[in-house]
Amino acid sequence: MITNYISTILRGGNPGDAVTVRGWIRSKREAKEFAFVDINDGSCMANIQVVVDRHVPNYDTIVKQINTGASIEVIGELVESPAKGQRFEVKASQVKIYGEADPETYPLQKKRHSFEFLREIGHLRSRTNTLSAVFRVRNACAAAIHQFFQERGFLWVHTPIISASDCEGAGEMFNVTTLNLKNVPLTPDSQIDYSQDFFGKAAYLTVSGQLEAEVMAMAFSNVYTFGPTFRAENSNTSRHLAEFWMIEPEMAFCDLREDMDLAETFLQYVFKYVMENCQADMEFFNERIDKSVLATAENIINNQFERLTYTNAIELLEKSGQKFEYPVSWGLDLQSEHERYLAEEVFKKPVILTDYPVEIKAFYMRLNDDGKTVAAMDILAPKIGEIIGGSQREERLDVLERRLLAQGLNPADYWWYLDLRRYGTVPHAGFGLGFERLVQFMTGMTNIRDVIPFPRAPLTVEF
Amino acid sequence: MITNYISTILRGGNPGDAVTVRGWIRSKREAKEFAFVDINDGSCMANIQVVVDRHVPNYDTIVKQINTGASIEVIGELVESPAKGQRFEVKASQVKIYGEADPETYPLQKKRHSFEFLREIGHLRSRTNTLSAVFRVRNACAAAIHQFFQERGFLWVHTPIISASDCEGAGEMFNVTTLNLKNVPLTPDSQIDYSQDFFGKAAYLTVSGQLEAEVMAMAFSNVYTFGPTFRAENSNTSRHLAEFWMIEPEMAFCDLREDMDLAETFLQYVFKYVMENCQADMEFFNERIDKSVLATAENIINNQFERLTYTNAIELLEKSGQKFEYPVSWGLDLQSEHERYLAEEVFKKPVILTDYPVEIKAFYMRLNDDGKTVAAMDILAPKIGEIIGGSQREERLDVLERRLLAQGLNPADYWWYLDLRRYGTVPHAGFGLGFERLVQFMTGMTNIRDVIPFPRAPLTVEF
Repeated sequence: MITNYISTILRGGNPGDAVTVRGWIRSKREAKEFAFVDINDGSCMANIQVVVDRHVPNYDTIVKQINTGASIEVIGELVESPAKGQRFEVKASQVKIYGEADPETYPLQKKRHSFEFLREIGHLRSRTNTLSAVFRVRNACAAAIHQFFQERGFLWVHTPIISASDCEGAGEMFNVTTLNLKNVPLTPDSQIDYSQDFFGKAAYLTVSGQLEAEVMAMAFSNVYTFGPTFRAENSNTSRHLAEFWMIEPEMAFCDLREDMDLAETFLQYVFKYVMENCQADMEFFNERIDKSVLATAENIINNQFERLTYTNAIELLEKSGQKFEYPVSWGLDLQSEHERYLAEEVFKKPVILTDYPVEIKAFYMRLNDDGKTVAAMDILAPKIGEIIGGSQREERLDVLERRLLAQGLNPADYWWYLDLRRYGTVPHAGFGLGFERLVQFMTGMTNIRDVIPFPRAPLTVEF
Repeated sequence: MITNYISTILRGGNPGDAVTVRGWIRSKREAKEFAFVDINDGSCMANIQVVVDRHVPNYDTIVKQINTGASIEVIGELVESPAKGQRFEVKASQVKIYGEADPETYPLQKKRHSFEFLREIGHLRSRTNTLSAVFRVRNACAAAIHQFFQERGFLWVHTPIISASDCEGAGEMFNVTTLNLKNVPLTPDSQIDYSQDFFGKAAYLTVSGQLEAEVMAMAFSNVYTFGPTFRAENSNTSRHLAEFWMIEPEMAFCDLREDMDLAETFLQYVFKYVMENCQADMEFFNERIDKSVLATAENIINNQFERLTYTNAIELLEKSGQKFEYPVSWGLDLQSEHERYLAEEVFKKPVILTDYPVEIKAFYMRLNDDGKTVAAMDILAPKIGEIIGGSQREERLDVLERRLLAQGLNPADYWWYLDLRRYGTVPHAGFGLGFERLVQFMTGMTNIRDVIPFPRAPLTVEF
């Protein structure tokens, strides 16, 4: 097991150190009496260069096995490197090849591959610079998120994946069943006989853990979810996944202003953490993937987010003289073009819009005193549009029941959710954040399928 | 939003501090001119006691609203408590009731409720002492797990929930589909026409992320999963869930010995973390749920785990003179009675059994040189039996192909898994741990449905 990563050796090593390096060969250059081998163990973007010469036992055999993709162990000495761009290299005294990789068939030769091609070899693509950097950033993001909430006394709660209810009364869902699909049992009146199914009723993959997170917030004050959620939408786009991870904090005794405060602090914390912990990866993205990645991160970290109401935003857009594909008027569900215009052109930093028209928002959002808007907030970021959506929740039983009915939902289906308002209800609020959107935003990757190890999308379920 | 939890006030407060307390009322005692109110915000087992007297505005109204389950905000002063068992209480100057709880209908009155009853009110049960303690311990466990692996440079990898493959060639699985169940499309030869399904082929809920974790370990060296997994077994027991969370670390360049070392260190770390961070909760479990909980934790933390081969364990059991329901002979898949006998009676501490017969273990476990056993390990703990199962993985392409065929599996279905052995294969190992089993073990809770917020089991999918 590797306990001394290449990242640690490159950062903390000293010339003369005896080192053991294990990893996969990224490239080699052969000269007459020696070979340079670049080894990567996934711990950082950088390879460590190893010099293998005739002092190494079995040199002739080994040098033939040294090919891109082969796995290798090197025992040697850390020495200062005469080469540019690296402090250290390893002078090998012993080399062992664990597993070869035939250069005729190994798909990842040292050249650029398209991301489309790499998706076809999802089991190998993490061995490339870009995907490797993506998943290190993804891990750092995830670690930052847990650390942020744990430091603040939030409980990580695991809300159910299989659910009998549909959180927002919308969203296309996957069925979960053990019925024999070749011969689905029907009731006498030709309905599906779910009494024979595993759960005794129709069951789905969850689209959100929010309602259950509210349950937990009503006992623990501050909680968050971090788990998979699902959409069965047939959207073959670069921004949609059928399976993705979501973070949903929920806070009791919390209003919309405090919700916004937390969301802003949260985003800044996560970006800062990643900038500090994945510096080389972030510089790589900025150089190779999207030249604005570092500037965007700095913009988020260093600016107080602009806050304005939806109504003010509409006025601003109307007066802008800008031509939009979707014409602007009060009541419009803002499109990405409007959101990006506000964040990129008007304010040039993240913007929090609040108090949206009741008609375009979910039933659980708290109705404002004007009767026309709800205490919702969306955070819009330059380059991406909406990154966080949140709201204060409707804590008044009678208002909530009316909102359910107005949206054609049956209050009886929400008996337990309504009970939270019946017994010890409190003002509370929360927000939701698509994890892959965040990673995509942070890395500048164009296609969301390249920021999750094994993407699920229409007709896509390999690996 | 609560930023100053009751746990913080009780731990770090000083007499004379101005405090604001928010939470839910657990109980009250009324006297003529004042009332004692116990408030809990979920941050710790302890309530904070508040003294409400006639100096508080609207005393008469408020004292009527003060009932178990109501939500409350108290502004007041922290004073030394004359009562036994608590250092502090709060002398209220202002009280606000956010939401009442009708004592006639609120199901959680101050008395003991059965866990069966509490499962029926899963949306309220976290407001009880026991469930509240369980979910704090659960959170601490989860936080410890992330911290342990992140400290060691392991990447948290999100393996897919929806999968087209069945990791172990066994296990009953849930179908995931968007086909119209009332009218499932069939092909001309009467098979299900999955080409019309969302993924274009049969899809299931994953039973393990191990195979995909191996993919990631072959790029990042050390990784771990921590996510939901599923079993569609119709097991209505106190030890089975249809949906549960699993932790699966996977390490490249790792053999069975290092795998055991890591698993042992890991278990001790998590128990230690919980003992340090949830002391009052653990004492509560020891007193109310299972009198051996603290001793078991100490046993794990302070002992070097015993290691012996399966073969030696069988000899030991055969010579023991003990009567077992399942008679012991080499080749037997050990039952809980045998595992517990070894851990509780023979060694009186955790035991790691290694090198199991090839016939009773999964295809991916590395075949030992004897040709009869595989490099598997199970950790058996006193009181629970198997808590961790792991193995070194078969890294040799030819051996792995033979093992697949021997188990009636089609190597073509595992093309990408085999590719890992074709290109840069390395010795590697890992283990798996059911998260709810761990929490159950730690807390002494009898039924596994009481250690996950919203349990899923046959006919059980409410909330």
